[in-house]
Amino acid sequence: MKKIRVGVIGGTGMVGQNYVRLLRNHPWFEVTYVAASPRSAGKRYAEAVSGRWLMPEPAPEQINALVVQDANLVESAKGKCELVFSAIEADKDTVRKLEEEYAKAGIPVVSNNSAHRNTPDVPMMLPEVNPGHAELIRFQREQRGWRKGLIAVKPNCSIQSYVTPLFALIQAGYRLEAVIVTTLQAVSGAGFPGPASLQMIDNVIPFIKNEEEKSELEPMRILGQLRSGRIIPDDSFKISAHCNRVPVIDGHMACVSVKFNGRKPSIEEVTKIWKSFAGEPQKLELPSAPPDAIIYREEPDRPQPRMDRDAGRGMAVTVGRLRRCEVFDYRFVGLSHNTIRGAAGGAILTAELLKAKGFF
Amino acid sequence: MKKIRVGVIGGTGMVGQNYVRLLRNHPWFEVTYVAASPRSAGKRYAEAVSGRWLMPEPAPEQINALVVQDANLVESAKGKCELVFSAIEADKDTVRKLEEEYAKAGIPVVSNNSAHRNTPDVPMMLPEVNPGHAELIRFQREQRGWRKGLIAVKPNCSIQSYVTPLFALIQAGYRLEAVIVTTLQAVSGAGFPGPASLQMIDNVIPFIKNEEEKSELEPMRILGQLRSGRIIPDDSFKISAHCNRVPVIDGHMACVSVKFNGRKPSIEEVTKIWKSFAGEPQKLELPSAPPDAIIYREEPDRPQPRMDRDAGRGMAVTVGRLRRCEVFDYRFVGLSHNTIRGAAGGAILTAELLKAKGFF
Amino acid sequence: MKKIRVGVIGGTGMVGQNYVRLLRNHPWFEVTYVAASPRSAGKRYAEAVSGRWLMPEPAPEQINALVVQDANLVESAKGKCELVFSAIEADKDTVRKLEEEYAKAGIPVVSNNSAHRNTPDVPMMLPEVNPGHAELIRFQREQRGWRKGLIAVKPNCSIQSYVTPLFALIQAGYRLEAVIVTTLQAVSGAGFPGPASLQMIDNVIPFIKNEEEKSELEPMRILGQLRSGRIIPDDSFKISAHCNRVPVIDGHMACVSVKFNGRKPSIEEVTKIWKSFAGEPQKLELPSAPPDAIIYREEPDRPQPRMDRDAGRGMAVTVGRLRRCEVFDYRFVGLSHNTIRGAAGGAILTAELLKAKGFF
Amino acid sequence: MKKIRVGVIGGTGMVGQNYVRLLRNHPWFEVTYVAASPRSAGKRYAEAVSGRWLMPEPAPEQINALVVQDANLVESAKGKCELVFSAIEADKDTVRKLEEEYAKAGIPVVSNNSAHRNTPDVPMMLPEVNPGHAELIRFQREQRGWRKGLIAVKPNCSIQSYVTPLFALIQAGYRLEAVIVTTLQAVSGAGFPGPASLQMIDNVIPFIKNEEEKSELEPMRILGQLRSGRIIPDDSFKISAHCNRVPVIDGHMACVSVKFNGRKPSIEEVTKIWKSFAGEPQKLELPSAPPDAIIYREEPDRPQPRMDRDAGRGMAVTVGRLRRCEVFDYRFVGLSHNTIRGAAGGAILTAELLKAKGFF
Repeated sequence: MKKIRVGVIGGTGMVGQNYVRLLRNHPWFEVTYVAASPRSAGKRYAEAVSGRWLMPEPAPEQINALVVQDANLVESAKGKCELVFSAIEADKDTVRKLEEEYAKAGIPVVSNNSAHRNTPDVPMMLPEVNPGHAELIRFQREQRGWRKGLIAVKPNCSIQSYVTPLFALIQAGYRLEAVIVTTLQAVSGAGFPGPASLQMIDNVIPFIKNEEEKSELEPMRILGQLRSGRIIPDDSFKISAHCNRVPVIDGHMACVSVKFNGRKPSIEEVTKIWKSFAGEPQKLELPSAPPDAIIYREEPDRPQPRMDRDAGRGMAVTVGRLRRCEVFDYRFVGLSHNTIRGAAGGAILTAELLKAKGFF
Repeated sequence: MKKIRVGVIGGTGMVGQNYVRLLRNHPWFEVTYVAASPRSAGKRYAEAVSGRWLMPEPAPEQINALVVQDANLVESAKGKCELVFSAIEADKDTVRKLEEEYAKAGIPVVSNNSAHRNTPDVPMMLPEVNPGHAELIRFQREQRGWRKGLIAVKPNCSIQSYVTPLFALIQAGYRLEAVIVTTLQAVSGAGFPGPASLQMIDNVIPFIKNEEEKSELEPMRILGQLRSGRIIPDDSFKISAHCNRVPVIDGHMACVSVKFNGRKPSIEEVTKIWKSFAGEPQKLELPSAPPDAIIYREEPDRPQPRMDRDAGRGMAVTVGRLRRCEVFDYRFVGLSHNTIRGAAGGAILTAELLKAKGFF
Repeated sequence: MKKIRVGVIGGTGMVGQNYVRLLRNHPWFEVTYVAASPRSAGKRYAEAVSGRWLMPEPAPEQINALVVQDANLVESAKGKCELVFSAIEADKDTVRKLEEEYAKAGIPVVSNNSAHRNTPDVPMMLPEVNPGHAELIRFQREQRGWRKGLIAVKPNCSIQSYVTPLFALIQAGYRLEAVIVTTLQAVSGAGFPGPASLQMIDNVIPFIKNEEEKSELEPMRILGQLRSGRIIPDDSFKISAHCNRVPVIDGHMACVSVKFNGRKPSIEEVTKIWKSFAGEPQKLELPSAPPDAIIYREEPDRPQPRMDRDAGRGMAVTVGRLRRCEVFDYRFVGLSHNTIRGAAGGAILTAELLKAKGFF
Repeated sequence: MKKIRVGVIGGTGMVGQNYVRLLRNHPWFEVTYVAASPRSAGKRYAEAVSGRWLMPEPAPEQINALVVQDANLVESAKGKCELVFSAIEADKDTVRKLEEEYAKAGIPVVSNNSAHRNTPDVPMMLPEVNPGHAELIRFQREQRGWRKGLIAVKPNCSIQSYVTPLFALIQAGYRLEAVIVTTLQAVSGAGFPGPASLQMIDNVIPFIKNEEEKSELEPMRILGQLRSGRIIPDDSFKISAHCNRVPVIDGHMACVSVKFNGRKPSIEEVTKIWKSFAGEPQKLELPSAPPDAIIYREEPDRPQPRMDRDAGRGMAVTVGRLRRCEVFDYRFVGLSHNTIRGAAGGAILTAELLKAKGFF
C-alpha cells in the first residue's frame, strides 16, 4: 500500500517532535511536510530543531532533510500532504484560525491543541469511547462548506487514565452518579520547559492551571450524545478532580472513587468488563490501537508510572487496585502515557479511525 | 526550672534519632536514658549509631556519651528518667508487653508505635484535637493498678494533614457527612531504608500497606467521645483514603473532598475558622506547640512539601486551595511534616500536654 | 537455524530477570533452563518472581512456565542447556565453586559475578577490546581437564563508559600515561534494593564500596597481554577513579581526563578514531553488537544518562565533550547502560563471541 | 549597637530574596532599602515578589512593607543605606556601570554578579583565603576618586568546595603542581527557573555554560598576590575542572585529585591542617563566619549535599574521603552550600570583613 502523506504543523516543538518520532515506520502514514513559525521556515528540519531536540533517538534522516515551511502559508501544504497533525503553540485565536485555514484548503486537521475543543461542530475524539462522534464531521463540512477538509481534536492528557475505564462500565449498562478523582501528573504534560527542577525535586505541586476544569468537563463532552449536528454533553453524573504535578517524566496516574446510580456491578464483574473491553480501534485493528485498550494488573501496588506507562506501546490504559470505597462504591487507580496516548499517539489513532471510516 | 529527665527506648533507630534531635535544647525535658536492642546495649550512643546516623547534624555530646541500655531490662530505667518515649521497632506483641512493663515500673510511656493504638484504655492523642482523651489515663491506671505509670500513643503520620482542619470545622458547629482523601506521602514515613531509590526515581507508588485502613479508622477514634472509661469512636461520617508514596523526603500532603451534613459554612467562614483555630496546646503555650496550629496559605499552588513542611518548626498543619467541590461541598489541600508533627514531635507535644495536666 | 538452548542461574534476581528480558527473541539463544536458590526451586518461574519482578513488561510465557531448578544441583542442567549465564548472588567462594561445577559438568558459564574476575585462567571479556583473551579458555580447559565446559566473566559495570574509548586510542597507536576519571553511577548498578530513596532524593553519595579499586584495576587486566596461559596486566599507565552514586535509574557516566605518553592525536583525530572504531563484535556482526561501538555526540551537553543510555539498544558507548584539559591533554565524557552493556547484555555479547569463535 | 543600614539591589530575584532571608536578625546589618527593575519600582516588596517568592518562610514584615526603588535611580539610595549588596541580573555592561554609579555616589557595593570579577582594581573576596586583597580597595578609591564608595565581589559558587581546603595546604607551606576537579552542582546554582525538571529527573547534565573556565581561573586570582595596585594571579599550578549539573536542590560537591610540587604532607598532616584551619573571619569572629571554616568528616561516604550543606549555617566547607590518588598524590571530596556560602552568605561575610577592617 502506498503510504498517505501527512504533515506536522508546529513540528519543531516538543509535541511536534513526538509526532515525528511516533510516525517513524508508521504503516499507513509518512511525514512529507513540516511547518513551524516563520523563524524556523526555510531551514532543514535538522537545523530547525538543533539544540532543542528532546527525543532520545535522532529524527529519521528523511525528516531531517525536509525544508520546514512557514505554518502561516497554508498554500505551501497543498499537494504535499493529505492530512496535517496540528501541534501549534500559540494563542487560541491564532490556532483556531490557522487550523480552519488548513481545513478550508482541503486538508484534514487532527489537533493536539485545545483551541477547538469547545467548538460545537468539532468532535473531540477518544477513539475507544466515542468513535461515533466522528459523524459530527459531516455536519461540520456541510455547515462550513468544506468538501475534503475537516477538524478533529483530541482531549486533554489528564483524562485518559480514568475515562476509558469509566466508559467501559457505562457501556456494560451501569449508570454513574459521582466520581472524585485525584491525578498525579507527569512533568512532560506541561511541555518544555515546564516546571523547573527547583520546583520538582523533593516536592509535589498541588495545582495545574485550568487542569481541574478540563478534567471535569471534557469527559462529559466525550461521553455525550451526537444529536442534530451537535454534542449534548452527558449530565447524568458529576466529576470532581484534584490535579497534582509530581516528579515523574511521563505517565499520568489517577486515584478514582466512583459511585453508581442504581444497581452496581460486583468487583469480579468490573474486572471482567475491563479485561474484555474492546473499542472500535481494537475491532478495526488500527495500527496504533493497543491490543488491550485496558490492562488490569492484579498486583497490590500497580499501576506505577515508570513500570506501566509503556504498556501497549504507550497506548493502553493500565488499571489496578480495584477495591471497595468506604464512601462511594469502588476505588481504583488508572494510568496512561500522557505524551503518547494523551497527546501525539492519541491524535494519530484518531487519524487512523477517520481514515478507516473514509473521512479522507 | 530543673529539667525533667526523659528516656528514649528504641533510641538508636530513625525515630529514636529524631527524638534525640528534637529534644536537644528542650526547655522542659532532657534525655538522660537511651535504651535499644541487646545488640546496642553497653555501647556509647555515638558508637551504637555509628554508620547509621541519619540526622543532618551530629547528636549532642552529652547524648553521644550515654551508655545505651538493654530496652528489655526495664529496671535499668528506674531512677534514670521520669518518662520514656517509645520508638521501639519490633512485632506488636513484644512492643505492647514492653511498654506495659515500663508503665508498670512507674514510668510513663508516650509511644510512636502502633501496637497500643487500639487498646481500649490507651488514649491516642492529637493534642489540638482530643486533649480531653488524656482523662482516659485515670481509668487506665485504676484498671491496671498503676500509680505513676501510664501509656499514651500518637496516631499514624498520614492523618495530621487533614484531621486538624476537619476538627476545626466540627468544633465550629458543622457536621460532616463524608470525606474522600488522597494522600501523597513522603518516603521518610516508611522509616529507613523504606522504598528503594529504584522504586521512587521517576515514579510514584499507589499503595502503602495498611495505610488506608489506618487513615480511615484512626481519625474516628480521635474524634470519638470518652464515656465510662472507653472511647466511643465517632461514627457520624465516613472517610475513604487513597494512599500514595511520592519521591519527597519529608511532608505528607492530602487532597481532601468534604461533604457536610446539614448546613455548611461559606468559604470565607471556613478560612476564618482555620485561621483563628487554637487548640489546648496553643492555649497552654506548650513548648512544642506551633503558634498557629493551622496556617492557611492564599497562593493558588500551596501547600507544597518542601516549602511548607517546616512551618511552625515542623509542627503546624498548612492548608490551602480551599474551593468548591463539583461532587461534595469543598475541596482543600493539607500538609504536615510526617517525621516531626507526625512522629517524634507529636509525641513530645503529647508528653508536654500530659505534664501540663499533671499526669506525671 | 535451530536455537541454542541456554540457562540462567540466579535467574530470579534482578540481573537474572534482565537476562530473561534481553534474551527474549534472541536470534541464536533461547532460555530453556532457569535455576535459583532452593527457596525458589520447584516453583514455576512466574510464581518464583511474583512480587519481585522488576522489569517493565512481563516475562515471556514460555519462561513463566519453566519450573525453576535448584542451582546447587548442577545435574539438573545437563541436557537442558548448552550454556549458562550466571547471575548468582552469594558469597564469592560459593559462586566460584558453583560456576566451576557447571563448567566441570560440561556446561560453559558466562558470568556477571565478580568471583572469578581475578582467577588467572578465566578471561574477563569486553568483546570490543580484548576478544583475543578468549584464547585463555584453551589453557583453562587443558589445565582443569574440561572438554566442553569453560568460564568467562564480564568486568564491573563502571568501566564500560571509558575503557572502549581509551582502547580505541591505544589501538590507533597512541600510548597513555595517566587517566583520572570521575564516575556518576546509576542506582540500578547496586542491584535491588540498592540505595534507599531517603539517600538519593535531593542528594548524591560520593562513595561506592570497592568500586574505585575495580574501576582502576579491571581495565588493566582487560588491556593486558595473553602470554603463556595467563594475562599480563597492562602497567604502562595508571587510572585513578572517583566513584559517585547519583539519582539516575540506568546509565553510568564518566568524566575523564587523559594524558598521553609521547605523541598525541589532534582533537579531530580522536573523534575520527572513535567514529570509525569497530571491534570484533561489529566485524562479526554479532546479534547483540551495536552497529557503532562508540557514538560521538557533537552537542555541547551530551551524553546524558536518560537521553543516551539506550543508544545501540543499550549496547553502545556514547562519548561527547572532547576538549583540551588544562592539566592533562584531553577531557571527555563517556556513558554506557549499566544493566545492559554493563551487565546482562555484555555477558550475552561475550557468549555470542565465544560461539562465533567455536568455543561451544 | 545601632545597626548599619544596608540595601539590596536586584532584591526581588532569587539571590535578592536570599539576601533578605539571611539578613533577617543579622546582628550588624538591617535591610532598609530594596531596589529592582523599573517594573517593580513603586510597589511594596511583598507585592513585588508576590507569585515569585522562592524562600520557604515569608519575608520579614518590615521588608515586605518597604517600597521597592528603581535600581537605576542611584539617588534614591542616598541616605537610606550605608552599603548595598548587588544581586542585579542584567547584561554585564549594565551591571558594571550601575555598580560603579552606586560606588561613585559614596555607597559601598558588595556584589554577587560576575561583571566586575575581572576588573583589575576590584577585589574578588573569599574571606578565609584572601582577606588581604581588601587592601586593593585603597588603590581602587584613589584611582577612581571615590572616598566612601567601593566595589568588592565574591567568586563563582562552584569553587568554594575546593579552594579553601587547597588554600589551607598552601598556607601550611606546601606547593601544588596540579589539580583535577569534577564538580556535581546543584540546580539552584543556575538561578530560577534554571534547568527544567524534564532535564533533571532520572538524569545528570555534564555541562554548565562557562562554568569550567570560571572554576579554573577564579581560584588563581583569589590565590594571587596583591602588588602595586593589582592582583598577580597565582600561576604556580594548574586546575582542570569538569562541571556537571545533578538533581540536587542546594550544595555543590567536588571530587578533587591533587598533586604537590616537591614535598607533600602525610594524610594525617592534611586532616590536621584542615581541622585546625582558621581564617581571618574566624579570628575576627565575624557574625556569619562558621566556627570551623573546614569540617572534616571521617565517615567513608561523606560529605553528601543534603546531609552536609547546612553545616556552619551553610557557611562551612565540609571535606571527606581523603585518600591516596593512584595518579596524583591525594584525592578528597569537598562540599559547600552554593546559595549561602557560594552566594549571598559569602557576600555578607565579605561585607562583615570590610566593616571590621574599617572600609566603611
